[in-house]
Parts: sequence; C-alpha cells; structure tokens
Amino acid sequence: MTDTGDKLGAVAQFADAHNLPLRPRPHTLRLRRLGIDTHQELVVYMRQDCHICRSEGFAAQTRIQVSANGKSILATLSIITSNLLAHGEAGLSESAWRLLGAEEGSETSFSHPPLVESLSLMRGKIYGQRLNTDSAHQIIQDIVAGRYADVHLSAFITACSGGSLNRDEMTALTRAMVTTGSRLDWGDRLIADKHCIGGLPGNRTTPIVVAIAAACGLTIPKTSSRAITSPAGTADTMETLTTVDLDVPAMQRVVEREGACLVWGGAVDLSPADDILIRVERLLDIDSEGQLVASVLSKKIAAGATHVVLDLPVGPTAKLRSQADGHRLASALRTVASAMGLDVRIMLTDGRQPVGRGIGPALEALDVLGVLRNDPSAPQDLRNRAIGLAASLLELVLKFSPKQAAEKAAEVLENGLAWRKFEAICEAQGGLRPPPHTPHTHPVLAEHAGLVANIDNRTLAKIAKLAGAPSAKAAGLELHTPLGAQVEKGAPLFTVHAESRGELAYALEYVRAHPGVIRLETDA
Amino acid sequence: MTDTGDKLGAVAQFADAHNLPLRPRPHTLRLRRLGIDTHQELVVYMRQDCHICRSEGFAAQTRIQVSANGKSILATLSIITSNLLAHGEAGLSESAWRLLGAEEGSETSFSHPPLVESLSLMRGKIYGQRLNTDSAHQIIQDIVAGRYADVHLSAFITACSGGSLNRDEMTALTRAMVTTGSRLDWGDRLIADKHCIGGLPGNRTTPIVVAIAAACGLTIPKTSSRAITSPAGTADTMETLTTVDLDVPAMQRVVEREGACLVWGGAVDLSPADDILIRVERLLDIDSEGQLVASVLSKKIAAGATHVVLDLPVGPTAKLRSQADGHRLASALRTVASAMGLDVRIMLTDGRQPVGRGIGPALEALDVLGVLRNDPSAPQDLRNRAIGLAASLLELVLKFSPKQAAEKAAEVLENGLAWRKFEAICEAQGGLRPPPHTPHTHPVLAEHAGLVANIDNRTLAKIAKLAGAPSAKAAGLELHTPLGAQVEKGAPLFTVHAESRGELAYALEYVRAHPGVIRLETDA
Repeated sequence: MTDTGDKLGAVAQFADAHNLPLRPRPHTLRLRRLGIDTHQELVVYMRQDCHICRSEGFAAQTRIQVSANGKSILATLSIITSNLLAHGEAGLSESAWRLLGAEEGSETSFSHPPLVESLSLMRGKIYGQRLNTDSAHQIIQDIVAGRYADVHLSAFITACSGGSLNRDEMTALTRAMVTTGSRLDWGDRLIADKHCIGGLPGNRTTPIVVAIAAACGLTIPKTSSRAITSPAGTADTMETLTTVDLDVPAMQRVVEREGACLVWGGAVDLSPADDILIRVERLLDIDSEGQLVASVLSKKIAAGATHVVLDLPVGPTAKLRSQADGHRLASALRTVASAMGLDVRIMLTDGRQPVGRGIGPALEALDVLGVLRNDPSAPQDLRNRAIGLAASLLELVLKFSPKQAAEKAAEVLENGLAWRKFEAICEAQGGLRPPPHTPHTHPVLAEHAGLVANIDNRTLAKIAKLAGAPSAKAAGLELHTPLGAQVEKGAPLFTVHAESRGELAYALEYVRAHPGVIRLETDA
Repeated sequence: MTDTGDKLGAVAQFADAHNLPLRPRPHTLRLRRLGIDTHQELVVYMRQDCHICRSEGFAAQTRIQVSANGKSILATLSIITSNLLAHGEAGLSESAWRLLGAEEGSETSFSHPPLVESLSLMRGKIYGQRLNTDSAHQIIQDIVAGRYADVHLSAFITACSGGSLNRDEMTALTRAMVTTGSRLDWGDRLIADKHCIGGLPGNRTTPIVVAIAAACGLTIPKTSSRAITSPAGTADTMETLTTVDLDVPAMQRVVEREGACLVWGGAVDLSPADDILIRVERLLDIDSEGQLVASVLSKKIAAGATHVVLDLPVGPTAKLRSQADGHRLASALRTVASAMGLDVRIMLTDGRQPVGRGIGPALEALDVLGVLRNDPSAPQDLRNRAIGLAASLLELVLKFSPKQAAEKAAEVLENGLAWRKFEAICEAQGGLRPPPHTPHTHPVLAEHAGLVANIDNRTLAKIAKLAGAPSAKAAGLELHTPLGAQVEKGAPLFTVHAESRGELAYALEYVRAHPGVIRLETDA
C-alpha cells in the first residue's frame, strides 16, 4: 500500500501547489422503481430540472456513476421531462436496479464516472496496435465491471473481427477472460470436455457425447452457452429438458454424484466477459475468429477442463466454408490451447447440411432423446457424429486405440447405459421433463418433384430464428428432406413451428421472399 | 413499375404453390407522451402484458417498426413492468415522438421491421470486403432513414477506422453522403469554402477567413459542424454570437445579401448521415481518416462549393502527429476531391500548440472578435493563420499571386472592411450578441519557474471538455503561456471556466491527476 500512499501524497501536494480546491461532496436523490426493463443495458432516469443534473451538467445519454449501499454502477441517462418522477427522485432500469441491489427510497449519489482508461487501449486496437496481456486484461476487466456502454462493446468486437487478432492477442484475450471470472477446481482429476463452434443447425451432439463419456467413466462437467447467432445453443436445448442455471456448489454436487453435468455456463460465472460480448455480437450478427477462440478456450479453461475435443463443421453454408478455413481456425485453436496448457483434439466434420431433423431448442431435444433411447426412427447422422466425438474423447483421455474407442462408445449407447446416465444427470439437476410443443406449425411444400441437391444452412437457421427460436423454446423447424432425398411435388420440405401466429407469419413471409433454401434438381 | 408488379406476382405465385398463409394485419395501440428524453436514440415503451408484444414475440431491446400518420420509424423496445402505461397504450421517447410527428392518443401500429439488408454489407466490410458505390449508398441510405441501432453505427464506424478504407471506398462513401441529403444550388457562381480538420484547440480561423474573403468579393456560404471530439466547433462558437440554425431559404437570403454566411450545417440537412455518424464517433472518441475525408468533402460538395482551402494542423499532440501523416491525409483528400470534381488547396500548418488564448465556444469567440476589431491585445497567431488561409482562397478562386493575395487579405482586416462584413453577416442571421461568460473560474498555477517547453493539446482539450465545453458555451479554458514563454513560480498557466461548480471541480480533479499538461524547463 506504500505505493498508493505515495501517489495520494503526491496528488495532494500537487493540488496544494496548483491552488486546486477539494472536490465537492456528491449529492443524493431517493430511488424509485419505475419498472422499465431495458434488458442488460443500464439506464438511470432523472428529472430535467433536477439540481444534480444542472450542477453536474448531465444531459441525455451522459454516462453517470450511480452509488448506493456501498456499490457503484455506470448507467446511461434518460432525462424525464414530465412528472413520471417527483422532485428529489431518480429511477433505474430493472437491470440497474438489480445490479445495484437497490431498494425503494434508498439515498443514492450521482457523479461523473471516473474516466474508463482502457477505452484508449481499445481505440489503440482500432488504430492497429496489438493487444497484449496487460491491455487485454484492462479492457476485459472494465467490460466485466459494466464500464463499457453498448457502443463501446460494439466497437471492441468489431475491432477484433475480420482476422485482426494474431495468436498472441488471442492468447492474451483468452487469459484475460479466464482471470476476470470464476474458475472451477476439480483437484488432480483429468477433466474431459467437448465443444462445437456451431454454425450447423441441429448439431446437438453434446448431451449424447456427455452421456456416453460419463457412462464410460470420464469426468465431464459440461457447461454450455446459449445461442449466439444460431436458433439454439446446447443450454437452450437442455433447458427444455431440465434445470440448467445451477450455481457452482449445485453443479459440483451433480458432478460428484454422476461424473458429469449439462448446465448453462452463464450461471456459474465462467468467463463473464464472454457473456457480455456475446449479447452484442448477437445484435451485430458477428462471429469473430479471435473472439471465437478466446470464447471457446476461456470457457473450457475456467471450467477446469484438461482434455477437450472440438467439433468444427465445414461446408459451403456452415460457419467454416472451406477446408482451408477449417485448418486455419484449428491451427489458431491449437496454438492458443497449447499456450494455455490445454490438451485438444480438433475434428473437422461434414457441415454441408443440418444434423438430425429438428432446428430450435425443443425440436433438437426430441432428436437427442430419440438417439439416447435407441428409437429406430432417431436420426442416424446425429447418432454417428455423437459416437465419433465421444470416441475421440476416449482416445484423448483414456488413450484408447481408435477401434477400441469407437466400439466402446457405440456399446454404451446401444446397451442403454448412456440413456440411464443422461436420465441420472437430469434427475440430479432437478428432474427430466418433456420438451414443450406448439400448435402453430405450417409445412412448406415442394413446388415440383426433384432430388435435394443443396440446403442453405444459414437461411434455414434464419427462418427458425424468425419463428422465435431460441427465446421461444418450441419454435424452429423440422427438416423432412436431407441431401439426396427424392421429393414429390407438393410433399413437405420442412415444417415451421412458432409460439405465436405473428412469428409464424413473419417466418413464412421470409420463406416467401427467399425461395431456393432447399434446391431440387430435376432430370434434364 | 412493371418490374415491381412482376416481382409481386412471382411472390404471390410462390406463396400459393408453397401453401403459405397471408400475413395478419398489424395491431394498434394509442400513443402516450411519457416525456423521456433519450437524445437521438429512438425508444418505444410497451407494457409487458401487451397483446402485441405477446403475439409478435417482442422482448426488451427488440427493434420494432412503429407506424402512424403514414410515417414509420425503427425504435428499440423498453418493456414497462409497472403501471406507467395503461392497457392499450404505448409510449415513445421524445426523439421518436418528434420523428414520427406523433400526437397524444394517435392509433399506432407495431410490427417486426423489414430486415435491414445493408447490415450484411456492413458485416462484409468488417470481414474485409471493399465498399463500392452501391454498397456504400445502401448502407448510408439505411443510416439516414434511422434503420441502424447505435451498436450498428458503432460497428460501421469502427470497420471504417484505422486506415481500412482505400481511396475508392472513400469516394464511394463521400458520394453516398452527398446524395442522401440536400444539395445547395448557387447557379454558375464560383463558390469558395474552407475547412480545418480540427485537433488543434482554439484554431477558430473560420469566422475571420469568411469575413475577409467576403469583404474581397468572394461568395462563401459557410456551413460548419459542431464539435466531434473537441471542446468547440465553429458552429458552437458562432452560436455564442448569433443564430446559426438557419434553414436553406434563410441561409440563401443571407448569402444573397452579404455574399457569405456562418451557419450550422446540420440545420440545412447537408450530408445528414455525417451528423448521425458524428454523434456515435463522439461517444467512441474516434476520428477515422476515411470518414474524415468523406465527412469533410461531402459537406463541402453538398453545400455547393467549387473551390476549397483545407487547413491540416500537424504536431505531436494534434490530430496529425507527423508531416508523413499530414501528407497521407492530404493525398487522400486530393484524390477524392478530384474524383468528385472539386478544386482543393491543402495547407499543412503548425499544430504544436493551441491557437489564440481561448478554448471553448465563448472563449474562442472573444479571440475572434479581438482579431476582427484589430484589438492590439488580440492573439497574433490566430490573426496570422486567418490571413494565410484567406490569402490561399484568393489565390485559388481569383488567381491572385501569393504576394497580392496576402497583401489584400491583410488590408481588408486592417481597414475594418472584414469586421464590418462580419457584423453585417451576423445582423443578417438575426443579430450580433456578446458571448456569455461564467463566474466559475479557477487558475492553475506554475509549481516552479521555467520556460514553456511543451503543451499537450489533447489533455488541454480534455480539461476544457470536462469543464463542460462545448455544450456549456461559456466553459473551457484560457491559456496564458504559449510555447517559449518564461513563467515565474505561482504564475497562472491557464484558467479553467465552467458553468457549474460540479464541472469545475471535475475538470480540476483531472488536472490534479494529469500533471505535466504544460511542461516547464528549468536551466540545468
């Protein structure tokens, strides 16, 4: 503390020598809960004629530090020009109210926020300077503390997109995202994990892989994210079957009992910066390579993983469009993982068409249940991919031969051990329940007969999203016709599911405006 | 219209063939004015239990199309969880209320907005694709129509920063910004203009240059911007002396009468995209080279200029740090100007220290008045720079020799013609008034004796901004000690002016935390 003491001394001396007055004490207002939900954006409401606004020079959109109960947050100001607030009152958005732990009537002070010094490091990145361990840490720390407004987050994401991060920067960002959140500790055990970078609708292998791996004796405490730009993430799908927002002690109890869990990573505060960035990436509809690497690896490292299998689907309308793109990302992931002391195995998989039939949280859950229960009508492509990934984990962690690993993975699926393990995990998390369904469905029919020659993953995903997925759990679509299928005129190509008539109509309007999502070839 | 008719026909046929239902009609709510000022961001407020939110799947932060009176806007949703709104009511922010031309109780419909297709072009730019005339036009058109949320504007600005735009892209952006706004028409006359790219506090030459040029018979209808990241723009300074928000007919009357005007460009709708982008650039504290070129040249071309002198200050803490930076920007400006058919002359000027004494709208106005009135105590550096720029204009437009031009410019300043012209312009705009002053001032004193060896422009500008400039017109600072001045211990280096005690204290706190803004060298 000597350093800080010296600095304060120097500042006081400087203030004295330069004839600077002491800072006046902050003023206070009483908080009132207005009941305005602005999602995660923090907003403060103050009267136009408020004495604090006038003496501090606050105007609409000013960033303000709000302090009460020994806590401080940064919020954006909306000015009330009517009588929504009485004199002496200020309001907070619901998100700000929660973060501050506010109570009706609490005395609260308002001041100009301290300058967010890391914003100049962010601008440096925009101007072409490289991030390093220190600058990445400062930026991510301020982001986690809520000091970046949405426009700042958007600028940072954009500056890190389009291949602008090199390997050292990705490592710095990964490290910063790990160290600014919680980190799970599993002792000396080998901890298995798997992850798919997404971009392939319906590729919901995780619940199956976890069930197989745990049934084979691996420890696999799986934390998953919600969808970023896709119609469903594993956490969205699992949430239709069981409780996923477990805190760390609850998650640990499940893992001690079953050797595995299937929970939402956001609830255990792993890499919280990632969750904040993902919200704005979703608004921008951007997935950046560098942030993808940092996002994936920081979550795995924070979750305590030691051995990870990564699934990278490659296809013309997948996230990775070519083998070359796939190899480049794989190489970046390997370099950063190695710098962080993580064992990874990377699998480039077929990403030419959706996996299984369902696209959307509940519809994908139905496919997962079908495979785990050995239902004869279950989608075989989903089953085979899950066995392949689980076998890779067995090779990586248990040093099985490829043949031995593939046989073992298929065996525990076929003999029902994987299904019983899945049931047990869901029971330990709070109970297994059936996924929801909706009456608002509508089939899209083939205009002519033909062979399915091409499927546009991105447009299918967009249709599922416009139908309401992932926030509407039962929304999405069922694909009836995989590549190579022979289709008759008037047969259903896919069925759109929505939870409201408005969303169903909206999705179908988009289908109308974008013909050719499934291309049928006729004999010439 | 045949093309549109054909397209609609094709869509209907497709809808029919694919068994798609018609879109349901939009629902309506009654508008209520809540009196919430969110600056330029458009916000709509709806009840959580509103039937439209439920049927359409609207959630907090959803973008929504709001339509009434034959007009439509895109706004961001805040959800009301209390009784601020009654059943059947929706609210709008003040900005949205104005843009929609709303009235209390008007029936208004709410729907999912059409997809903003140009966002994919913006993402393309982030991923490294080049802008072209068409994509730049689509993006800028959507920005002007209010279809970009702040996070999208931030991403676009960031994607165009850090040297990522080449000359063709800058030209495309410039053209798009011209064609999406109004364009002034002055017939066949040669139209003079000048512009400084900023970054040098106190460099308020424009009012003087315009007065000199008009006194010499040039036509110079000057439109200026407000500050972007600086403590004052020319429009901010002129606003302390006269009315600057003239519409096009009013501006034209002033120019017909006096051959010149000094108005705010935003009020005449020239390059409106620029004003929208500048607001977010200010939040980010970013000036991008490509957008600077497009911003400067689009405003000049839209204002009808044919001959323009550009002032580019160069110095270690100016916007341009080196001669090399200056030459690069000058070259970009020349290339784009030439592609757009504009005659430009570019002057790289000394940007090592502030110009004049005042920094901030009113304090700079006082310097301008001093020079125009030939006040003996007026800052000579400001006077000399203004004469130099005015002379360049005379060379460019009237083909004067350098000597002849410099003599003529000095002559009309010394004989009072320029001052009388300035008075006449202000009278024509609505009257000349004295700039405001404030009692809240505080001197910052020299800690020891010495020679002024270095002045940090950026930190001085920041202090003036923390004191409230440019929105607080009287705020800013007076610099007492230029480079090379000999200063005694305890003598005032500069005096901070603020319109409130809070802002004065805030600025002085920053001074305390950042010693060395003016570096004094002592004899060793």
